[in-house]
Amino acid sequence: MSRCLDAARGAIARCQMLATCSEEPGRTTRTFLSPPMRDVHDHLRTWMEACGMEVRLDAVGNLRGTIGQGPRLVIGSHLDTVRDAGAYDGVLGVVLGLALVELLEGHVPFTLEVVGCAEEEGVRFGVPFLGSRALVGTAAPLLDLADADGISVRQAIRSYGLDADQLEEARLDAAGYLEFHIEQGPVLEHLDAPLGVVDAIAGQSRLDLTFTGQANHAGTTPMPLRRDALAAAAEWMLLVEHAAHTTSGLMATVGQLHATPNIRNVINGRVVASLDVRHAADEVRRAAVDHLCAGAHAIGRRRGVAVDIARHLDQPAVAMAPALTGILAEAIAATGLTVHHLTSGAGHDAMIVAPQMPAAMLFLRSPGGISHHPDERVLVEDVAAALEVGLQFLHRWDPRHA
Amino acid sequence: MSRCLDAARGAIARCQMLATCSEEPGRTTRTFLSPPMRDVHDHLRTWMEACGMEVRLDAVGNLRGTIGQGPRLVIGSHLDTVRDAGAYDGVLGVVLGLALVELLEGHVPFTLEVVGCAEEEGVRFGVPFLGSRALVGTAAPLLDLADADGISVRQAIRSYGLDADQLEEARLDAAGYLEFHIEQGPVLEHLDAPLGVVDAIAGQSRLDLTFTGQANHAGTTPMPLRRDALAAAAEWMLLVEHAAHTTSGLMATVGQLHATPNIRNVINGRVVASLDVRHAADEVRRAAVDHLCAGAHAIGRRRGVAVDIARHLDQPAVAMAPALTGILAEAIAATGLTVHHLTSGAGHDAMIVAPQMPAAMLFLRSPGGISHHPDERVLVEDVAAALEVGLQFLHRWDPRHA
Repeated sequence: MSRCLDAARGAIARCQMLATCSEEPGRTTRTFLSPPMRDVHDHLRTWMEACGMEVRLDAVGNLRGTIGQGPRLVIGSHLDTVRDAGAYDGVLGVVLGLALVELLEGHVPFTLEVVGCAEEEGVRFGVPFLGSRALVGTAAPLLDLADADGISVRQAIRSYGLDADQLEEARLDAAGYLEFHIEQGPVLEHLDAPLGVVDAIAGQSRLDLTFTGQANHAGTTPMPLRRDALAAAAEWMLLVEHAAHTTSGLMATVGQLHATPNIRNVINGRVVASLDVRHAADEVRRAAVDHLCAGAHAIGRRRGVAVDIARHLDQPAVAMAPALTGILAEAIAATGLTVHHLTSGAGHDAMIVAPQMPAAMLFLRSPGGISHHPDERVLVEDVAAALEVGLQFLHRWDPRHA
Repeated sequence: MSRCLDAARGAIARCQMLATCSEEPGRTTRTFLSPPMRDVHDHLRTWMEACGMEVRLDAVGNLRGTIGQGPRLVIGSHLDTVRDAGAYDGVLGVVLGLALVELLEGHVPFTLEVVGCAEEEGVRFGVPFLGSRALVGTAAPLLDLADADGISVRQAIRSYGLDADQLEEARLDAAGYLEFHIEQGPVLEHLDAPLGVVDAIAGQSRLDLTFTGQANHAGTTPMPLRRDALAAAAEWMLLVEHAAHTTSGLMATVGQLHATPNIRNVINGRVVASLDVRHAADEVRRAAVDHLCAGAHAIGRRRGVAVDIARHLDQPAVAMAPALTGILAEAIAATGLTVHHLTSGAGHDAMIVAPQMPAAMLFLRSPGGISHHPDERVLVEDVAAALEVGLQFLHRWDPRHA
C-alpha cells in the first residue's frame, strides 16, 4: 500500500508538471497537436522508455507505449485539455497506466499498451474523440474538418510530422480496454467513496427549442394580451426540471438561453433554449425528450406562443463490457473498498472503443465535483486506491475470458 | 367632420414627411438637436407662421408657436424619436396642435401655444424628457450629461446656436397642458375604440435580481445536487407573471435575462434578470415589488441559490388633472364616442409638466399596438376623431375653471 501511495504522489506530481505544457501562459490549454503537446509527448516517452516500454506516435498523434508479449490489454485516456483546464482530466488516466507498469517493474504476463489519446475534448475542431476514433478506424471522415484558423485535421497532422494517410495503422487490436478517469461530478464525494465502477456511459439528446411570441412594450401591453416568449420558456424550464427530478437517473438541463430583444422594458418576442437530456437507458431518455417536446407545444398553444424544435443529437448509451467490469468490481472489493456502480453522464474515450472491444472504466472521486476548471483536484489516497485496484485488476485479467 | 378628415389626412402626411428627417438613411432616427431636427423645425416653423403663429426656439431647443391673447393653454408633445422609429410617436401630438390652430383659422379666445419638445426618448444622453424638464425648470442638472461621443447637453445646445444659460426663459407659465399621443399599446384596439382619456401615468419600479447558484457539468451532476440559477429564475419568472395576472391593472415584466456561463452542457451558475413593475396606484406597485422580492428570496433559500436584489427606480404614478381630464371626457362624449379611461404604462411629457400645471392626455388607437417600430401606424378616422375632440375641448376650455 505504501508503494501505491508513493506512486500516487508521483502520478499527481507528473500531472501537475504536464499541466504546465500549455498554449496559454498561466493556465492550462492544450488542444490537438498544439506545440505544448510535443512537450507532453517528450516527457511521457522518456518515462515510458525508462521502464522498458516501446513508444511510438501513431498517425493521429496518439502516444502509445507497449510492454510484454501476447494478448493485448490497453490502458488509455486523453492528453488534450479544454481551455483553462485542470491538471487531471484525461492525463491522469495515462499517467496511472504508466505508474502501473512501473509498479509491476516490467513483469506483465501479456501485452500492456498505455495510450495517450491525441484529442478527446473537441476544442480545436468542434468534434471530440479524434484520438479514440482513430483507434477504432472511424477518424478518416474527420480529416477535412478545419479549426478556427482554417487548418484542417490533415494539415495539423502533417505539421506535427505525421502522415494522415497512415491512419489505418493507428487501429487497435486488443482484448480489453481500461480507462481511469476523474468522475468530474459530485456522486462519489456524496457517497464518501474514492472509486466507482462505470457501468454505462449515458446516452444524450441535444435539442434547441425556439419560442416565438410577440415583442411588445412592457408598460403598455396588458397581461392578458401578452404573448411573452420568456414566460413560456420559464414554464417549460420548470417542466424540464420536474421531469428530471421525478425520473430516476434522468438528467435534463437548459444550459443556454437567448432572449430577443432582451431589453428591460420590452416583452421578449423570441427565446431560444437548449435542452440536454441524458440517461443510461435510451428508451427512458427518448420518452423524456418526447414528453418535454409535447409539454413545450402544449405550453405554447395555451399561450399563443409558437414552438419550433430542432433535434441535434440522439446519441445512444454505451454499456461497458460486463465481464471486464466484473473483474474491475472484484478488484475493488479485493482492496477492501465498497463497490459503487455509476453511469457516466459525460462522454469518454471508453465510449468510442467499447463497440469494438471489451471496455471498462474506473472513476476517481472529484473533490467538489469540480472539473474543466483550474480548481480540479484529486486526493492522493484516492489515486493510491486506484493504483491498488489497477494492480488487482491486472492480476485478475485473463485475456481468454475477457 | 369632413374638415377634420381632410385635416387628419394632412396631419398624417406631415408626420410621414417629417419622418424622412433622419440621421440614418432609410429609417427614422432623430435624437436631441441632431442635424435633421433643424429640418423638422424649419418645416413646422413655416406651417406655424403660415397660420399666424409667432414661433421661437427656446434655450433647450423646444419649438414653440403661439397665437392669441390672455390665459395660456399648451398643446405639446415631442419631436425626437427612438432609433428606427415610426412616424407618429410624439410628432403627431405637435402636428395635431398645429392642425387645430389651422381649423380654428386663428380664432382662439385665449393664448394657445403649440410646443414641440426637443427630447423625450432619452436616446442620446440616456436620460429622457430634456425638453419637458426645461418647460418646468428641472433640466439644469442634466446639462453636463455626455452622449456616446462625449458631447455634453450644454455643448449640443451651443452647437445648435442656442444658449444653455438662458434655460430659465424656457419655463412655461400656462393654465393647462394637453397632449395628444398614440397609445403605443393594444388596449384601444382591443376595445374597438379610436380614442381614450389618460387618467394617470403609471408609476414604475425597476429592479435587477441576481440568482447565484453553482455552475456544474450538465452530464455529471445529479438533479438533487444541483443549484441551478436558471431554474430558480424560471420559477421566479412564473411568480412574476402570476402576480401580475392576479392583480388588477398590474404589469410586471422580465425583459432582460443574462445567464452565465450560458453553455449548452453546463448548469448555469448565475442569472441576472430585470424586473419592470407598473401600476397606477403606487401602494399596489410597491406591495407587488415587495411580494416578488420576498418570493425570489424564498425560492432561492429552498434551492440553495443566493438572491441579490438591486432596486434602480421607484417612480411614483402621476395623475392627470381631474378637471381638465373631465373636459376632455366631455369633449369625447360630445363627438358621440364612448369615453374610455386608461392608465398610461409608458412615460410622456405630460407626466413631467403635470406637477406644475393642470395636464390632460388623449390617446389615439395604435393599430396592432405597434410603436417604436417602422410599422407604427394611425388610422385616418382616429386622427379625425382626435381633431374633432380637440375642437370640442378648445370650445369648452375655460382658464377660470381649469
